[in-house]
Amino acid sequence: MLKANNPQLSSWINVPKDSDFPIQNIPFGIFKTSNKSPRMATIIGDTVIDLQAMAEMGYFNDLDLIKSVFSQKYINEFMALGKPKTLALRDRIAELFASDNTLIRDDENAKGKIFQHVSNVDLLLPVQIGDYTDFYSSREHATNVGMMFRDPANALLPNWLHLPVGYHGRASSIVVSGTSLHRPKGQIRPNQEEPPLFSPTRQLDFELEVAFVVGKSSALGSSVSTEAAEDYIFGLALFNDWSARDIQSWEYVPLGPFLGKNFGSTLSPWIVTLEALEMLRVPGPVQDPKVLPYLEYSGKNSFDINLDVNIRTEKGAEKNVCHSNFKYMYWTMVQQLAHHTVNGCNLRVGDLCASGTISGPTPDSYGSMLEISWKGTKPVAMPDGSERKFINDGDTVVMRGWGERNGVRIGFGNCEGKVLPTL
Amino acid sequence: MLKANNPQLSSWINVPKDSDFPIQNIPFGIFKTSNKSPRMATIIGDTVIDLQAMAEMGYFNDLDLIKSVFSQKYINEFMALGKPKTLALRDRIAELFASDNTLIRDDENAKGKIFQHVSNVDLLLPVQIGDYTDFYSSREHATNVGMMFRDPANALLPNWLHLPVGYHGRASSIVVSGTSLHRPKGQIRPNQEEPPLFSPTRQLDFELEVAFVVGKSSALGSSVSTEAAEDYIFGLALFNDWSARDIQSWEYVPLGPFLGKNFGSTLSPWIVTLEALEMLRVPGPVQDPKVLPYLEYSGKNSFDINLDVNIRTEKGAEKNVCHSNFKYMYWTMVQQLAHHTVNGCNLRVGDLCASGTISGPTPDSYGSMLEISWKGTKPVAMPDGSERKFINDGDTVVMRGWGERNGVRIGFGNCEGKVLPTL
Repeated sequence: MLKANNPQLSSWINVPKDSDFPIQNIPFGIFKTSNKSPRMATIIGDTVIDLQAMAEMGYFNDLDLIKSVFSQKYINEFMALGKPKTLALRDRIAELFASDNTLIRDDENAKGKIFQHVSNVDLLLPVQIGDYTDFYSSREHATNVGMMFRDPANALLPNWLHLPVGYHGRASSIVVSGTSLHRPKGQIRPNQEEPPLFSPTRQLDFELEVAFVVGKSSALGSSVSTEAAEDYIFGLALFNDWSARDIQSWEYVPLGPFLGKNFGSTLSPWIVTLEALEMLRVPGPVQDPKVLPYLEYSGKNSFDINLDVNIRTEKGAEKNVCHSNFKYMYWTMVQQLAHHTVNGCNLRVGDLCASGTISGPTPDSYGSMLEISWKGTKPVAMPDGSERKFINDGDTVVMRGWGERNGVRIGFGNCEGKVLPTL
Repeated sequence: MLKANNPQLSSWINVPKDSDFPIQNIPFGIFKTSNKSPRMATIIGDTVIDLQAMAEMGYFNDLDLIKSVFSQKYINEFMALGKPKTLALRDRIAELFASDNTLIRDDENAKGKIFQHVSNVDLLLPVQIGDYTDFYSSREHATNVGMMFRDPANALLPNWLHLPVGYHGRASSIVVSGTSLHRPKGQIRPNQEEPPLFSPTRQLDFELEVAFVVGKSSALGSSVSTEAAEDYIFGLALFNDWSARDIQSWEYVPLGPFLGKNFGSTLSPWIVTLEALEMLRVPGPVQDPKVLPYLEYSGKNSFDINLDVNIRTEKGAEKNVCHSNFKYMYWTMVQQLAHHTVNGCNLRVGDLCASGTISGPTPDSYGSMLEISWKGTKPVAMPDGSERKFINDGDTVVMRGWGERNGVRIGFGNCEGKVLPTL
């Protein structure tokens, strides 16, 4: 077992109660301050730890790492070092900040160079995303959408139980948590008897998703098996796949969503490694009908991660509108990755694969306003007396994700974004 | 008018009859040889011209260019310099290689450093592609597909005449002309009464397309008008959007093509600038119904570019299966780009936007085997006596594109790829 995965481990760095970032987490991200260029970091509690500074000071000298990976604008080069090296770094960080280690604890000069309070830094998009793929792997979500837009008696399409449906999304417009987005405009057709209109979207929505980041490339023409898939998954983050439902529903037949999605998506700032999530593994769902052999897998490949979505109004009133869980996914990440490459499609370090909206079995676990308000027929009452069918200008959508075992809580940090009026 | 656009201009470099690359073309690409790292080049006739060598020798010193743009693996940094600079370089190249210019012509040492015969170099993928978007802008193609797969009486879907339908594709698997591809495998469902099978595709197809390369970025949240759109288009290339029809038809509902497309696409090696195509402008088609104001445009924004597709068998027998033209597009590039950004989606230098299959009005101008063989019902007779409904292992698909005015022929060079057996 990795040293960092020991639930008994604690740090001499203060970790507030309910922090997402105990010493067992050690996620990776990129930050900058007014007097430093972008660089790699991890976080314990509320303390951002400058990994470039640590590398320069020699704390990783025996780990055979290329020091320049810590001074990049993205963590891609670090991920590309491969798991033996990135996990060795994970363990070194756990060792240096463990309660019994005085090396940095008693070195005020070192601490001054290495530590920043999280409120004093800008967290940047951590990954240079090559290709972004979005799956559609929650059975409840696909069923809800099918009931609303197609045939309630045959809500799931014939292919859905045979393969993890996925499609390509836009990488350029993925932004880090905290970035505001303008309400998109485009063609909508509210009245099917009339021609389409040009308008700001009237149905701006979020989609609660978890994304995995590819940390290892594969060659064009080759396939990755479900067994080998986790070697290609560096880590996970929360993902809000903002959607304009009225633009989407008019444009998407027959080639899929385009302008209804590509105006922006929000990624949480820390990439939590697969290894940090180890203790949250649970068995995946029973799949019936039986899947084709290339989609079979063994072991626990689902993860028990609580997922919350809150809407915060301009005046600060916050309302929880969804409590879901990553374990509700019908198709697991190893199946998604095996399916993605079975035709020879190549992976590159930095590719991002999102889960699709994660809805659970009950209305309070639906992962989009489309489902929560059931196409606008069941508005949500906000604490300030207003109602929401979709997302209003001035609203901030806040997603949180975390899992707990043996008193250890591993989380992602907020994935949030505010909606500004159309430009 | 740019000096390079003068039809009277000729070069002291030999330009064979029917060459795609007279001195008026000056496309940009990337090449390498066994003893040189990848670098930027242009081509006149069959002579590849090393732009890094020319920059080092000082021929561009007064143009205020950053010399390092010529020693990159991709032309992205060059494109990002902006049209005033890239067009000044275009004119300088035309000046130095014009018949009346003796500066390099009479300098054997310079010629030795600058020139390579095209058969002695490897042409590489010229652009680091950020996001790849595929449109669906040929009315004839959309109608043919609609007739085959949906309702012959209502072949065009309701949105098609109102907006240039597009979707996101996979950038990682775009390869340069000359790269072979393995036949992809995946789920197909040949018999709708039976469960799906896992199999190599039985319906491997090409799609004849033209792609444009984005040379200027736009900010997230902002839109680019049809009037401003050409400033964002650096140049064009031929594009084969290989498709596995049986994989695609089983997977694509409701979110669009995925594994049926992302196993590979082929791009021709030279990016022909919009300015080189100036003389080929023709008026676009009449659009009825009238488009929404953000899609209106004025001027000639279609291009009269002949497009040929040949199939070459393993033994070298070659058969022309399609003669189409880029001017058949219903939606123009400026409309595609304005639509793509109208919701605030940002562009990055190196983004690639392909046209979608370009089919003309007659069966000999259809741009895919799906249409040419009408779903396999009208096989094509090959010169060796064999038949093709789709593409066989060992076949090479060769696309060519060119336009002519006033005795000047501007072309793209071949876009070709061979199909190898499944791995």
